Amino acid sequence: MDPPTHRSLPRIHRISARPGPKEDVLIIGAGPAGLMCAFALARAGVFTEGVRIVDQRPNKVAAGQADGIQPRTAEIFKSYGLSDRLLKEGTQLHVAAFYNPSKSGGIELTDRVPDVTATDTNFPFEVTLHQGAIEAIFLDNMRDMGVEVSRPVVPTSIEVDEDLVEDSDAYPVRVEYSVVLERTDSEPEDEEHNEIVHAKYVLGADGAHSWVRKHMRIAMEGEQTEYIWGVLDLVPSTNFPDVRNKCAIHSNNGSCMIIPREDDKIRLYIQLDESGLGKDFIDDASGRVDKSRAGPEMILDVARKTLYPFSIETPQSFDWWTIYIIGQRVAERYSVHDRVFIAGDACHTHSPKAGQGMNASMQDSYNLAWKLAHVLKGTVDRTLLKTYELERRKYAQDLINFDKKFAKLFSGKPHSELNSNGVSHAEFLQAFQTFGGFTSGLGVRYDESLIINPKHQHLAQKVLIGQRLPPRPLLRAADCRPTNLHDLLVSDNRFKLLVFTGDTHEPSQFTKVHEFAQELMHMASPGSFFAGFSSLEAMRAVFDIVSISSEKKETIVYNALPRILWSHWSKVLVDDIDMKGITDSGKVYESLGIDTTGAVIAVRPDGYVAAIAPLDATGVAHLTDYFANFIKPC
Amino acid sequence: MDPPTHRSLPRIHRISARPGPKEDVLIIGAGPAGLMCAFALARAGVFTEGVRIVDQRPNKVAAGQADGIQPRTAEIFKSYGLSDRLLKEGTQLHVAAFYNPSKSGGIELTDRVPDVTATDTNFPFEVTLHQGAIEAIFLDNMRDMGVEVSRPVVPTSIEVDEDLVEDSDAYPVRVEYSVVLERTDSEPEDEEHNEIVHAKYVLGADGAHSWVRKHMRIAMEGEQTEYIWGVLDLVPSTNFPDVRNKCAIHSNNGSCMIIPREDDKIRLYIQLDESGLGKDFIDDASGRVDKSRAGPEMILDVARKTLYPFSIETPQSFDWWTIYIIGQRVAERYSVHDRVFIAGDACHTHSPKAGQGMNASMQDSYNLAWKLAHVLKGTVDRTLLKTYELERRKYAQDLINFDKKFAKLFSGKPHSELNSNGVSHAEFLQAFQTFGGFTSGLGVRYDESLIINPKHQHLAQKVLIGQRLPPRPLLRAADCRPTNLHDLLVSDNRFKLLVFTGDTHEPSQFTKVHEFAQELMHMASPGSFFAGFSSLEAMRAVFDIVSISSEKKETIVYNALPRILWSHWSKVLVDDIDMKGITDSGKVYESLGIDTTGAVIAVRPDGYVAAIAPLDATGVAHLTDYFANFIKPC
Repeated sequence: MDPPTHRSLPRIHRISARPGPKEDVLIIGAGPAGLMCAFALARAGVFTEGVRIVDQRPNKVAAGQADGIQPRTAEIFKSYGLSDRLLKEGTQLHVAAFYNPSKSGGIELTDRVPDVTATDTNFPFEVTLHQGAIEAIFLDNMRDMGVEVSRPVVPTSIEVDEDLVEDSDAYPVRVEYSVVLERTDSEPEDEEHNEIVHAKYVLGADGAHSWVRKHMRIAMEGEQTEYIWGVLDLVPSTNFPDVRNKCAIHSNNGSCMIIPREDDKIRLYIQLDESGLGKDFIDDASGRVDKSRAGPEMILDVARKTLYPFSIETPQSFDWWTIYIIGQRVAERYSVHDRVFIAGDACHTHSPKAGQGMNASMQDSYNLAWKLAHVLKGTVDRTLLKTYELERRKYAQDLINFDKKFAKLFSGKPHSELNSNGVSHAEFLQAFQTFGGFTSGLGVRYDESLIINPKHQHLAQKVLIGQRLPPRPLLRAADCRPTNLHDLLVSDNRFKLLVFTGDTHEPSQFTKVHEFAQELMHMASPGSFFAGFSSLEAMRAVFDIVSISSEKKETIVYNALPRILWSHWSKVLVDDIDMKGITDSGKVYESLGIDTTGAVIAVRPDGYVAAIAPLDATGVAHLTDYFANFIKPC
Repeated sequence: MDPPTHRSLPRIHRISARPGPKEDVLIIGAGPAGLMCAFALARAGVFTEGVRIVDQRPNKVAAGQADGIQPRTAEIFKSYGLSDRLLKEGTQLHVAAFYNPSKSGGIELTDRVPDVTATDTNFPFEVTLHQGAIEAIFLDNMRDMGVEVSRPVVPTSIEVDEDLVEDSDAYPVRVEYSVVLERTDSEPEDEEHNEIVHAKYVLGADGAHSWVRKHMRIAMEGEQTEYIWGVLDLVPSTNFPDVRNKCAIHSNNGSCMIIPREDDKIRLYIQLDESGLGKDFIDDASGRVDKSRAGPEMILDVARKTLYPFSIETPQSFDWWTIYIIGQRVAERYSVHDRVFIAGDACHTHSPKAGQGMNASMQDSYNLAWKLAHVLKGTVDRTLLKTYELERRKYAQDLINFDKKFAKLFSGKPHSELNSNGVSHAEFLQAFQTFGGFTSGLGVRYDESLIINPKHQHLAQKVLIGQRLPPRPLLRAADCRPTNLHDLLVSDNRFKLLVFTGDTHEPSQFTKVHEFAQELMHMASPGSFFAGFSSLEAMRAVFDIVSISSEKKETIVYNALPRILWSHWSKVLVDDIDMKGITDSGKVYESLGIDTTGAVIAVRPDGYVAAIAPLDATGVAHLTDYFANFIKPC
């Protein structure tokens, strides 16, 4: 979808340009990627008057566009306390049903399997909710923090002063844009003026046709496919029995996908190129889709042939529809001098059918935002920003490689007696399940870098350094309330030090824990990293320290643990079964491969495992080496 | 606590009495019992301008008073969609810790056991939240429906015209009260006037010193005990290790109970009579507590002796405190001509330490409200109202009997070498666990009556007719989304017909289900109860029909079931394990004792099992007999 152009706005009275304020961060584009960044900065406490988010659309998206939320994204929403609303408004997909050609003509049910193959998550399903509703979750929560999107705002020029990019006090990015002020009773005409902004950082989250990307001359690498698909959003009246499940349908008349949606709606993805109809919608000159040549009824007619012998009625209205050609491209760079960044669709385009787009976009800016927040607060070095491209561009390349294989299987002809080279159900199902870890977002693993240290992996053998730490049921020691490791890994922009204290009921282990705590806060030692903070509060603004004991709930005395190892009584956990034996708790040490002599796991603010250390003086030294690389005690 | 008197209001200008409006229901008292009734009526759609709730307190309760929410009450909150807020704001109690005299003097930990012994609930714990916060949940949700409490309003007279009590169109209750209008800029003085209201029904939910009860000359039966206790709410600074658990402490200096609260507070219940101090606080003339003789510091000093060798610091301030003598009484009647009712503390007083008071109160009016709503809508006969006293007074008597035993064990001296008749830990623990089903509210079972029919119990052997139907994990057939039987038993004032269709994959069972459906809606038969409604919508306004199949999720075709057996695709359930094998679903038929030939369970609007019927023509006849007794098809 091309964004609406500024020309469509009525009755504009132009006035002369005026200088705008200095901004710490200017976010261009208020789609999922831009909003996640703005929200994350606001939550991190840096969205003061120095941060601004602008969008050229006069209003927020109302329908259509992206709609799939994968498990890892739901986990991120939970880490911000946003998942309750996501689950309340969204539809959950638990089943993927597969239909294939039947011998009697038409299609038949072949299989019903779990939609999400990954199990090690608290959200073992996909959630669908239209992009406008996702954006509203951010907008409403931002409004509660006093943050609004400025719109319509259309950028017109962007320049980076290369002499200033390494100066942390400088505002090296100059952006000019036009602002439209809406009519009021006293001002009967819309008023447009140009504004010049000097920013420390700019994020281009302005979609597949990114203005920021083009003006920064960042090329897209990759190519367009031959596959043409139509999309319809509607409330169906049908006798098709799996209409409330995600369906992958391979017929001899082309492929189709059904995605159940909120409010009893569904989305249909319908392959058009196979019907011979697809090319009719393409403008020969530009090679682009020309929507004026098609209509939702025509697309529904193709769907009818695919769904036969099941029927679907023409609805009174369509909620949204579009036609697209699959393109598979990744931006060659994600930043210019680590001052201008791009994120989301501006960086990568691919097939929407694996439901990855909105997820990849929000996770791009989730990755960037915590780093940017620390840089702006002065807690970390600017070099940390280099890890954004390193981590997210590699992910996007993996995504495109996955998409190429998956789109080919999906758009390919089904296997039959006439077409022995066609895609068999077994082949498709295997690909679906193999790619499950990837599509869920849970399998993402960041490479060794300034902030990923691969040492001491053996101390927590089943934890993968560079991957997000999985959820685990635990008990709070003081009140035995069931809780989860992920309830502690909230997105508060702090590093988490998870101190696995081992079996503190053993006197020798209890002594070991006290020695570790003493070493950690060795105030006498001038070179001590953790004692280098000006106060305990200053240290706790960067680190949250949590203790997890393998002692039994019947004997543990939570307040006998060293006070530095817990900031509040609720931060001492115990790895034991709950009082009623209902939750599956009591297996954290075992399932993470940690033995009862303990270990320390350092987790990044975004939930990824950063480093592992022994529970002793050498562990404190290792953690100091790791953190002192990029954190400045203050 | 005596309610504040009207005399304390400043600068009142009295004007002459004026007639007020006619009211369908007048609720006197906006504590938990009154608010539950008002909220329930509003949700049932009958809180129009014809219902009014008044309270003599100028403001809502801010701190102290009742605070314990038991599992059954949490289930009721969930059935109204209020449990998320309850859990978000409240503290969960999972552990009951027991301390007893140690040989070295002072007390020591004897045991940590589950606080709630009942397991068959989705809330296997107690929640604490102060009464003001509970009231705020109702007030906020009522405000969203346009309902507010009128206050301060002080009733002055009440009369029932006995000639009109059986006339369903009459307003036989005359209440006069004085209303204080607050000062405004244009009206510099508070204005008081008297108002006369004619009501169809009046609920006195006006507390232990109920004005309604006294003026209706309803006596309290029972007596006062010798036990004197003090209560303190504070944020503790202590080295006592179980301060975040519920604790029952028996010391040689008296007993003490700790109840953890929201915002890191705790409540201490401290026995005063054993210290010899208690009698100092009693006014000899009246036998009542005189709070002016005591203070929170004095009570804390007693607690310190009980808690020794652990220490507790004097806090900067106390959140709330009081002193009380345990009284154990039940009202001789709950209604006058089924026109004036009383509920909550107006009906029963007892020890607060088992956390029953607020629960019993809200469940009283929850029981009354659905009946009143149906009577006002004309869907049921007025005789239904007789079951309110029948069901709730028996419950209150059981509660007092329980309380007598429990209070004696709690206030009794601990067992020791010097006191071999004292209460042993084993004895106390056994009582605690035996009474668990009762204190959780889950064990309540209503007797046979107009609305409890004990027939056909054998068709669902593990369901107890008269008890609330327990929760069970299930799947929605259309999308395999895990759900729960309790998610279907929402408090929407409708009777639920749970049609256990059996294994519909079997052709003979499939036929049986279709025959049952046809019989249920036999339009040709003039005597047919269910076909007697004017439309399907009219029938569905009183009955929600849900189908639960024992077929497998891989084969079920939800839309092949008769359309009358589900109002929406989400109302066809399947008793099978979920797609990921994570929830404990797939055991509903087995655990309720229903075999695969099916059965029908009729559940009351308040979740209690009303009747069970076979899945055939005789079952339809049985259900007709049951419902035609009190429901009028319209």
